[in-house]
Amino acid sequence: MSTSSAVVAFSGGQDSTTALFWARQKFSKVVALSFDYGQRHKIELESAKKICKLYEIEHIVLPINTFNAIGGNSLTDNIAVSSEKDKTLPNSFVPGRNLIFLTYAAAWAWNRQIFDLVTGVGHTDYSGYPDCRQDTMDSLSQTISLGMDAKFKIHTPLMDLDKAQTVKLAQKLDTLKALAWSHTCYNGEFPPCGTCPACILRAQGFAQAQISDPLLHRDKYT
Amino acid sequence: MSTSSAVVAFSGGQDSTTALFWARQKFSKVVALSFDYGQRHKIELESAKKICKLYEIEHIVLPINTFNAIGGNSLTDNIAVSSEKDKTLPNSFVPGRNLIFLTYAAAWAWNRQIFDLVTGVGHTDYSGYPDCRQDTMDSLSQTISLGMDAKFKIHTPLMDLDKAQTVKLAQKLDTLKALAWSHTCYNGEFPPCGTCPACILRAQGFAQAQISDPLLHRDKYT
Repeated sequence: MSTSSAVVAFSGGQDSTTALFWARQKFSKVVALSFDYGQRHKIELESAKKICKLYEIEHIVLPINTFNAIGGNSLTDNIAVSSEKDKTLPNSFVPGRNLIFLTYAAAWAWNRQIFDLVTGVGHTDYSGYPDCRQDTMDSLSQTISLGMDAKFKIHTPLMDLDKAQTVKLAQKLDTLKALAWSHTCYNGEFPPCGTCPACILRAQGFAQAQISDPLLHRDKYT
Repeated sequence: MSTSSAVVAFSGGQDSTTALFWARQKFSKVVALSFDYGQRHKIELESAKKICKLYEIEHIVLPINTFNAIGGNSLTDNIAVSSEKDKTLPNSFVPGRNLIFLTYAAAWAWNRQIFDLVTGVGHTDYSGYPDCRQDTMDSLSQTISLGMDAKFKIHTPLMDLDKAQTVKLAQKLDTLKALAWSHTCYNGEFPPCGTCPACILRAQGFAQAQISDPLLHRDKYT
């Protein structure tokens, strides 16, 4: 285990929860950083809070009011989530979102002299989001290092894993109980709607890993 | 002149005003984008509004509440501006500020299919800010292009100019009248305090260019 600290960009979703548990094994101290960016569904932030409380992880929530002002996507505006495959990018793409999240995480970490950042993004099932690719993360890592005159490293433990492999990693890291409290559904529903692209992807991953999704029987994990 | 549009990151200060006028000559349409990031002094945003109104330039103000939440610098917190030269970075450095501004500008521009961004940053007089260097801007340009799957270009017309050369460029671009309404003073004062690092740098530039600062006799430019 490294003796240094890390800041994890933590949405309260399946992937960032797994990334958070990966970071807990790798770093001596972990801070989870969530963003209140005007999500249509506050249930995501509630999941993040619940998981950090359960595992006694320091949790910081930073407000972001700017994406709402920029607008034009289904995660902050009242637009139906697109699941069409014929578009270049789904309308759940918030331009610049991961770049902004990680740059803010770096700014927050810089003030505390922490230079290891962890994110749960992955290119395998990335729904066409260009800000989830390794080359984007490598470039961003260089940009924040140059821009803040520091040596940042962005860790992407899920980058090359498909959803089934992510589920298996979560099991290995003893994350299943935490995943019972994670949130995935784009429609902000619990129990999950089961029909949005995010729910379908999550269900496929658990099915392929032959593990039952703890979210569906949360009462067993209280 | 290019037939394309550009978005200019516009603070209402001397440099971004000059960059805005540079962009007006280069692009057929220019949008000025300002950020309300909890500056201690709203006079900067008022300058930006006044200049855009005078010259009939489309002006967008995006709110940013996150820097205040991150804290720890003299531009958003109630900390005296440091002018000490022995520190690595002055305490007016807001970590990630220019990276965030330009990434938001890119996100805003992306929604409107604009891919030319203009900023007034320069390394010559950059007060030790690492996010004002060309290598940072080059890396950021690559990061936003990868992250939004588009071909962005960040134009930095003042990058290699010292303050005197910037003043001469402003004169050449007929920007002096607009500069009468620009704001520079870190202490938010008008008439400017004359003693903060920003006021001193501005005064030196005009003195070296042998041009009288129009800000000091604004009444002549109404």
